[in-house]
Amino acid sequence: MNFTYKNPTLIEFGKGKIANLKNLIPKDRTILFLYGGGSIKRNGIYEQVIQALQNHSFVEFSGVEPNPTKETLDKAVLFARENNVDFILAVGGGSVIDGSKYIASSFHYDGDGWDILENKYIPKKALDIGVVLTLAATGSESNSGAVITKKQTKEKRFFGSPFTYPSFAILDPDVLKSLDDRQIVNGLIDSFVHVCEQYLTINHGCLVQDRYSEALLLSILELMQTFDKKDDLWYANLMWSANQALNGLIGTGVPQDWATHFIGHELSGLYGIDHARTLAIIQPNLLRELLDEKSQKLLQMGKNVFAMQTDDVNKVIDKIESLYLSLGVNLKLSSYTDDKNIAQKVIELLHKHGFDRFGINRTVSKDTVEKIIKRSL
Amino acid sequence: MNFTYKNPTLIEFGKGKIANLKNLIPKDRTILFLYGGGSIKRNGIYEQVIQALQNHSFVEFSGVEPNPTKETLDKAVLFARENNVDFILAVGGGSVIDGSKYIASSFHYDGDGWDILENKYIPKKALDIGVVLTLAATGSESNSGAVITKKQTKEKRFFGSPFTYPSFAILDPDVLKSLDDRQIVNGLIDSFVHVCEQYLTINHGCLVQDRYSEALLLSILELMQTFDKKDDLWYANLMWSANQALNGLIGTGVPQDWATHFIGHELSGLYGIDHARTLAIIQPNLLRELLDEKSQKLLQMGKNVFAMQTDDVNKVIDKIESLYLSLGVNLKLSSYTDDKNIAQKVIELLHKHGFDRFGINRTVSKDTVEKIIKRSL
Repeated sequence: MNFTYKNPTLIEFGKGKIANLKNLIPKDRTILFLYGGGSIKRNGIYEQVIQALQNHSFVEFSGVEPNPTKETLDKAVLFARENNVDFILAVGGGSVIDGSKYIASSFHYDGDGWDILENKYIPKKALDIGVVLTLAATGSESNSGAVITKKQTKEKRFFGSPFTYPSFAILDPDVLKSLDDRQIVNGLIDSFVHVCEQYLTINHGCLVQDRYSEALLLSILELMQTFDKKDDLWYANLMWSANQALNGLIGTGVPQDWATHFIGHELSGLYGIDHARTLAIIQPNLLRELLDEKSQKLLQMGKNVFAMQTDDVNKVIDKIESLYLSLGVNLKLSSYTDDKNIAQKVIELLHKHGFDRFGINRTVSKDTVEKIIKRSL
Repeated sequence: MNFTYKNPTLIEFGKGKIANLKNLIPKDRTILFLYGGGSIKRNGIYEQVIQALQNHSFVEFSGVEPNPTKETLDKAVLFARENNVDFILAVGGGSVIDGSKYIASSFHYDGDGWDILENKYIPKKALDIGVVLTLAATGSESNSGAVITKKQTKEKRFFGSPFTYPSFAILDPDVLKSLDDRQIVNGLIDSFVHVCEQYLTINHGCLVQDRYSEALLLSILELMQTFDKKDDLWYANLMWSANQALNGLIGTGVPQDWATHFIGHELSGLYGIDHARTLAIIQPNLLRELLDEKSQKLLQMGKNVFAMQTDDVNKVIDKIESLYLSLGVNLKLSSYTDDKNIAQKVIELLHKHGFDRFGINRTVSKDTVEKIIKRSL
């Protein structure tokens, strides 16, 4: 257990907190108000932000896509420079926030921003970012990571930088009420799998990290089971669970295994499948292919999360899969695309991105990926 | 669930991390190297710090007591001013760290530093603080609170300020190996009760906060049960559990009840009893006096922490008490002092400090305190 940890993001959690924007951003800043497809204009969040910023200078950039593309974000970078912006306010979910991190890091870089995603350029500074969260899912509002898509090559890649932690994040659970069930379900699955990627590894004996992960899994499980009884507290619990699932805390000092995400990213890059759905499709089958190395943690999860008295790992995996099915998620890859060469394309992209062997013990080979995809068709 | 949360302290966790001091403190600072009774000279920590600071300017101030007194700390303030100090390095446990917060806040204040403890002066700035932790117990290394004693009046009071979060804290679990059992036991109890004060309140339905608290209680319980099998990982788990128990996270947005601490502080102010031991003495009897209002959470604790299938609250309290006894702690107040007027003196001091009725529903009256003390004799 050896680690460095700091999470500098100020969290403002609760009803009505969007109004605090006026105090959270210094008056002398020129703000890039960044958002997505315009849903914030229908649910009243746009009005709340405009109201809070009435004594601030800002320019608006909208149209950041659900899987934010470098192509769109590069336009935002130019727009930000033209307007001498020195603060980005990201109002949205993971996509808009991730996008803001790309813009903030590219702003001071003369080359192609995609270099950051390919580790050819390491940002040395970034614009300040503030967040008004409108979706509970990715945890991006208080972590430093971002996933960006290159439309031209259908690639989806990750970067992180110590300079891209938002300085503040406003989490008003009321904003979740206008989301449709599909978005809420995606948030539940996304945060559940985020915890799993930091938990279903090896038996390391770090007590707090294991118990914290189980705490979040228990919380999200309860939310899944009470999906039809959503009230104010339900939304607040979802918002805080999703935040904690990926703010860096539960993964400090322990091994992590993001194999499901690596495969999932290629699938949503190739076919535009919702991020959370790619995870729900891949994760159970990945676990089935890695039964031996995952069995110890899976049995622990069965006992401590699902209260199962079993030493059959398959039953624990079936339980995880049944949760996703109970939320109405289609787990058949063939329902999302009629491409006959999914495995081949995924393997090619993974290779291009340097993932020939990955997973906690580097046991996920081309062959393993092929088997996982075959199980998932 | 409505809260503001930020924890700005950088945690450097792991073996050998003390050497990082040289990079964590800017070279142009003049450091007050603050420590306690000199145990760090016997266990090698002093040498590690001196080695790491060989290219820094620093002055030393030692002699901060286990319950740090304003009288000693005021001397440190004068010493710090005389030496134009602009950074405090606290090397110690909760007492030294709490002391550093008093010094950092008083440094810029012309009046009596004790005014801060009496809320007569609210610090508007403070010196920067860095920490090398030598005891796992109070969590003071990454929170903003401090408990200070006034020797003259035997008062022990609390203050907190947004300016007194340490900027960094080095947590090297190896430093715990030189502690005696009494100190380790105190750390286990202190952190266990810290969690309880944020957990044993009312049934609020905030899932993450409840599950996180149970996660820490389960971790500390396991450490108590494996006290005789202390290895590297055991110490690391203790250090991280104690930190998380009071860094502000588990108590965000939920009610807290520090009644046990309020009574405990008066007892250690009056009789010099170790802080943790006052908690172990008082807590079970306080719970017995507040059976009705605590029953829902106690039964939840019985089920989720102790895996007890009972609806008898008393059995859960007995279980808590038995943990403290199993660690060899004497729970009879009469063994620590032969004063016949304990209750009266505690009640008088509580009154002086504004605590005539306290606890989650303000149900802890003079009468309740008297009954709790009587049960504890």
